Amino acid sequence: MIIVMKGGIPKEHVHNVIRTIEELGYQSHVIWGTQRTVIGAVGDERGKARLHSLEVMPGVESVVPILQPFKLASREFKSVSSVVRVGNAEFGGGRLAIIAGPCSVESEDMVMQLALLAKEAGASVLRGGAFKPRTSPYAFQGMGMEGLRLLAAARDATGLAVVTEVLKPEDVDAIAEYADMLQVGARNMQNFALLKRVGEVGKPVLLKRGMASTIQEFLMAAEYILSEGNYNVVLCERGIRTFETATRFTLDLNAVPVLKKHTHLPVIVDPSHGTGHWEYVSPMAKAGIACGADGLMIEVHMRPEIAVSDGIQSLKPEVFRQLMQELAPFAQAAGRSL
Amino acid sequence: MIIVMKGGIPKEHVHNVIRTIEELGYQSHVIWGTQRTVIGAVGDERGKARLHSLEVMPGVESVVPILQPFKLASREFKSVSSVVRVGNAEFGGGRLAIIAGPCSVESEDMVMQLALLAKEAGASVLRGGAFKPRTSPYAFQGMGMEGLRLLAAARDATGLAVVTEVLKPEDVDAIAEYADMLQVGARNMQNFALLKRVGEVGKPVLLKRGMASTIQEFLMAAEYILSEGNYNVVLCERGIRTFETATRFTLDLNAVPVLKKHTHLPVIVDPSHGTGHWEYVSPMAKAGIACGADGLMIEVHMRPEIAVSDGIQSLKPEVFRQLMQELAPFAQAAGRSL
Amino acid sequence: MIIVMKGGIPKEHVHNVIRTIEELGYQSHVIWGTQRTVIGAVGDERGKARLHSLEVMPGVESVVPILQPFKLASREFKSVSSVVRVGNAEFGGGRLAIIAGPCSVESEDMVMQLALLAKEAGASVLRGGAFKPRTSPYAFQGMGMEGLRLLAAARDATGLAVVTEVLKPEDVDAIAEYADMLQVGARNMQNFALLKRVGEVGKPVLLKRGMASTIQEFLMAAEYILSEGNYNVVLCERGIRTFETATRFTLDLNAVPVLKKHTHLPVIVDPSHGTGHWEYVSPMAKAGIACGADGLMIEVHMRPEIAVSDGIQSLKPEVFRQLMQELAPFAQAAGRSL
Amino acid sequence: MIIVMKGGIPKEHVHNVIRTIEELGYQSHVIWGTQRTVIGAVGDERGKARLHSLEVMPGVESVVPILQPFKLASREFKSVSSVVRVGNAEFGGGRLAIIAGPCSVESEDMVMQLALLAKEAGASVLRGGAFKPRTSPYAFQGMGMEGLRLLAAARDATGLAVVTEVLKPEDVDAIAEYADMLQVGARNMQNFALLKRVGEVGKPVLLKRGMASTIQEFLMAAEYILSEGNYNVVLCERGIRTFETATRFTLDLNAVPVLKKHTHLPVIVDPSHGTGHWEYVSPMAKAGIACGADGLMIEVHMRPEIAVSDGIQSLKPEVFRQLMQELAPFAQAAGRSL
Repeated sequence: MIIVMKGGIPKEHVHNVIRTIEELGYQSHVIWGTQRTVIGAVGDERGKARLHSLEVMPGVESVVPILQPFKLASREFKSVSSVVRVGNAEFGGGRLAIIAGPCSVESEDMVMQLALLAKEAGASVLRGGAFKPRTSPYAFQGMGMEGLRLLAAARDATGLAVVTEVLKPEDVDAIAEYADMLQVGARNMQNFALLKRVGEVGKPVLLKRGMASTIQEFLMAAEYILSEGNYNVVLCERGIRTFETATRFTLDLNAVPVLKKHTHLPVIVDPSHGTGHWEYVSPMAKAGIACGADGLMIEVHMRPEIAVSDGIQSLKPEVFRQLMQELAPFAQAAGRSL
Repeated sequence: MIIVMKGGIPKEHVHNVIRTIEELGYQSHVIWGTQRTVIGAVGDERGKARLHSLEVMPGVESVVPILQPFKLASREFKSVSSVVRVGNAEFGGGRLAIIAGPCSVESEDMVMQLALLAKEAGASVLRGGAFKPRTSPYAFQGMGMEGLRLLAAARDATGLAVVTEVLKPEDVDAIAEYADMLQVGARNMQNFALLKRVGEVGKPVLLKRGMASTIQEFLMAAEYILSEGNYNVVLCERGIRTFETATRFTLDLNAVPVLKKHTHLPVIVDPSHGTGHWEYVSPMAKAGIACGADGLMIEVHMRPEIAVSDGIQSLKPEVFRQLMQELAPFAQAAGRSL
Repeated sequence: MIIVMKGGIPKEHVHNVIRTIEELGYQSHVIWGTQRTVIGAVGDERGKARLHSLEVMPGVESVVPILQPFKLASREFKSVSSVVRVGNAEFGGGRLAIIAGPCSVESEDMVMQLALLAKEAGASVLRGGAFKPRTSPYAFQGMGMEGLRLLAAARDATGLAVVTEVLKPEDVDAIAEYADMLQVGARNMQNFALLKRVGEVGKPVLLKRGMASTIQEFLMAAEYILSEGNYNVVLCERGIRTFETATRFTLDLNAVPVLKKHTHLPVIVDPSHGTGHWEYVSPMAKAGIACGADGLMIEVHMRPEIAVSDGIQSLKPEVFRQLMQELAPFAQAAGRSL
Repeated sequence: MIIVMKGGIPKEHVHNVIRTIEELGYQSHVIWGTQRTVIGAVGDERGKARLHSLEVMPGVESVVPILQPFKLASREFKSVSSVVRVGNAEFGGGRLAIIAGPCSVESEDMVMQLALLAKEAGASVLRGGAFKPRTSPYAFQGMGMEGLRLLAAARDATGLAVVTEVLKPEDVDAIAEYADMLQVGARNMQNFALLKRVGEVGKPVLLKRGMASTIQEFLMAAEYILSEGNYNVVLCERGIRTFETATRFTLDLNAVPVLKKHTHLPVIVDPSHGTGHWEYVSPMAKAGIACGADGLMIEVHMRPEIAVSDGIQSLKPEVFRQLMQELAPFAQAAGRSL
């Protein structure tokens, strides 16, 4: 339910409405506007009709139900696109946010080299997995805390912000100390305990779409984070499971305009995981920008042929540099800059 | 099997090889080159080893197997991208080929109006269904021959080439009289009798990907047409079936770079059928061009709200005009023109 | 629209209603009942409201719309399950109909041997492809008319009915001379020209589900055949395309109870194509019977290891015999016999 | 790697091999046999070749690589089917294990009534969600610990074992105090932190297949649990995501014979979630048993129309009783008892 307040009213009216919402057992989320203020009341769907009675309170203009099952994430609740700031990067603003880096952190040298490369080529965020979700228990599981320290050192050296994946609720605090942005991976998109935990922490969250998740389920997962009070959520399309085997997943770019229509949250695209082959990364990166994405997440490796994970989908330095140059006119055509 | 001939040899050597290939029970397909000539020998896969003995014939440089199951469609057979000419349009050249028009031909007025609109906005081919494949036997099945005549009249008035769908082998000749390009629809992608028939006729063919067809099956379907001697085949990605219901199909743009890697045939994208919603057509059209497509197929209707079929995915005239304007910088970024 | 006639009325009333339906531009389909007669009026969905006026005609009890998009195939139109007779086999009756035989007819010996095996093991219909739909134009395309003659000879020797696939409208008559049942394959499920043609011929039709077709589209394809006046349609679930690669397709047994709920037409299951591996055929055949299928279609080959097509999914004679024995108690548990 | 020991050797030989395996940095898993003992060595795949040198140790017969990526779960490692005991129930033995109960625990009365019903009808395990994974943060999230106590009380009253879902690693210990079997749900199938945690606890685990997980990934998830030393894992097929919308998911019964071929672990089927409609539960339950499942998981509710979750897929008491009666002959046909 959205409670739209009248313009030019005393703040007290707003606070009274908030108090009443909470007395009725709902959470309130306020967007203070210069013209008018809007309050979202979210909670158990049953018995929501009671909130309509707020309409008689002083300063209330109207009480409107949000028809979508996602509430705080919807454009109904907030029509203006959100901008999420992470270090010097802005997701959802005029300048595209480019995340680049290795699949896994492997050593100090490699992280530092790749961070310098990413910085120089124009990226604004460094990615790198320290805790890795691996299909096999016998595969390399990441460098852990040591990997986080290497990422932080690379940030200090380059000024890039750092994003890294968090796999379980109890790791969130420790990782949040090192990282500027917490990634929730595709396999954890409906790990609701983890979503709530990253919602409680203030840090920006990069939420990847589950490989069999509908766009509506994707937005409901974001809603878990928002409903805990953390609005700094960036959505990332990274490929869905289909019958096609020529690509590792089917990068679903259609999700970009569909998401843009229904949510105010920024949307980026990961063509590295989405296609699973380095040769398809550049064309799909350009296509992602062309259909309206706010940024990209790209895997880069100095020597993909010896990467401990996902080498086949990583770009070599020179290919990444070339992609960044070729992207510029597409960004411009889309009304953005790089 | 590809037989690569030496440079600067007499034509007779080539003819001798062709004769021998045919004596061995295979079909031959020749690409006469200025530097060197190449002959493809296709037919029953069993016993192909015999063709290796051609290596002893005068003028033969080498005999190389084509590893892909598609032969004449593969880049192994022909490394240079093919250009298919239809009227004034070129598929696969520097200028993008834009096909526009209504889902179904409904009346003389509507076809003429839309043809003028398409022409004026910069399209080079007019689409329009006269024979419609409909899921229900009780749905409108198209205007038939009368529809073809209206399309031909619109061509005469505007100079646009005409593409229309053919549903059964016995209609091919009649439709080929009116149309410049024959469309084989997604539901008929593995209608092998129809593929052979359009392969026998010289007319260019627009082959749409089946909604559950892998990219390899798509190329094998093209191979049916090529193996009958018709090399004027344009491939069209138009969406596959997945679990996602926010879009009618999942337009699989990944298919564009995958196809471009494996085949020399031109590739276009149909965002109208692929997404099923007019709002998503423009962003996905731009994305299609950005990832390397040679053209687009777009449904346009003067009044989508009263269209007899697929109104919801058709662009209004002003939206189509705006798309064409916005496409230009993306075309340029992709090294093409509109 | 269904026109339900009153009980005990003169036949003339029925004929008058039929005549009026046809004057209004619709086709009529009559089910003469001992209690009451029912008339289906099918045709262009637009303007169907006019048919309501039939309610004032003598002998008419009520005029009821059929809510499903499939009309003649629906249980709304005919609540009692249909039985389709093919030779001595009955699809939809108390005895399960088992179709067995090779993927492709390869020689006189092989067909005769397999027919005798099928007969002896308890099958009632012989399958065998004479015209084969092949993904590659260079693959074996079937023995053609000669194959049909071998099938007919096997029928004469064993008394088994014969089912074989028809690929194009112009072959229907010739194949109908030899076969007792015409198969429309998965790739042709929406080849509407072919559906109409087999609808015009009186022969029973085995309609296989398209590999990306929804159950509703499957029933709409059957409707094409029924609306031409041929009610002898048997539906066959044969696997759909999914992301899983452990089986060739995903045999969707859920389709059996779903179809049984919505249509009166018989439903069988093809675990050979559905799984693509001989080891999974027997368990899935039993499961098919357990969830309510009216029969099975099983590929059998004397020496699967040398089959020209689909050897890996064919049962050896002894495995087929064992399956037939093991099936008996499952048939009984399902209230059927073998 | 599997180390096969010679027959009739002193135990010390086995212990020496185990010690060496662990010195080399691998974990050892022993199956003590009456004829011969077998040791699995699992760990980082890289450098596994070193383990071949164990062949020279006293008592070692051979060192054999396990070709499948899942090791301890594979039939290569253990060819005899495993039996997992939970209370009086046996998964994988001659008697089928039937799990029944509500989707969510809603009240003391409802749990007790359903437990008595389940017991009386022949089920051996009671299901019931206390902690619920819900797509929406605003939906009922379960009764929590109070729900666990109600389940435990129902167990005490009926003798049924209790299975309930665990959502996060930190809840595992508390839930393990009340439940006899821990369920890892489909959305958590690749929540590796949770898999490891339930692997450390001795309790039997019911692992549900992820809705977009391949069968191989399913077995790799089981391997996570086994590699922590917990061999009491039961696999549950519960439907995958496909394009078909007539059922909520596509219950993939093909997974049953495929799993049975590749793993020694027991396999059960959940037709309630798999189909999402109560009408399809009984036919698919029978089909599950027919294709070789070791048991079933069925949702039952006294009044499905007022259930707080998943009412549409729950069986009413009388329908569940009828299913159990009708199942008996299918169980018998499959060589099992109820």
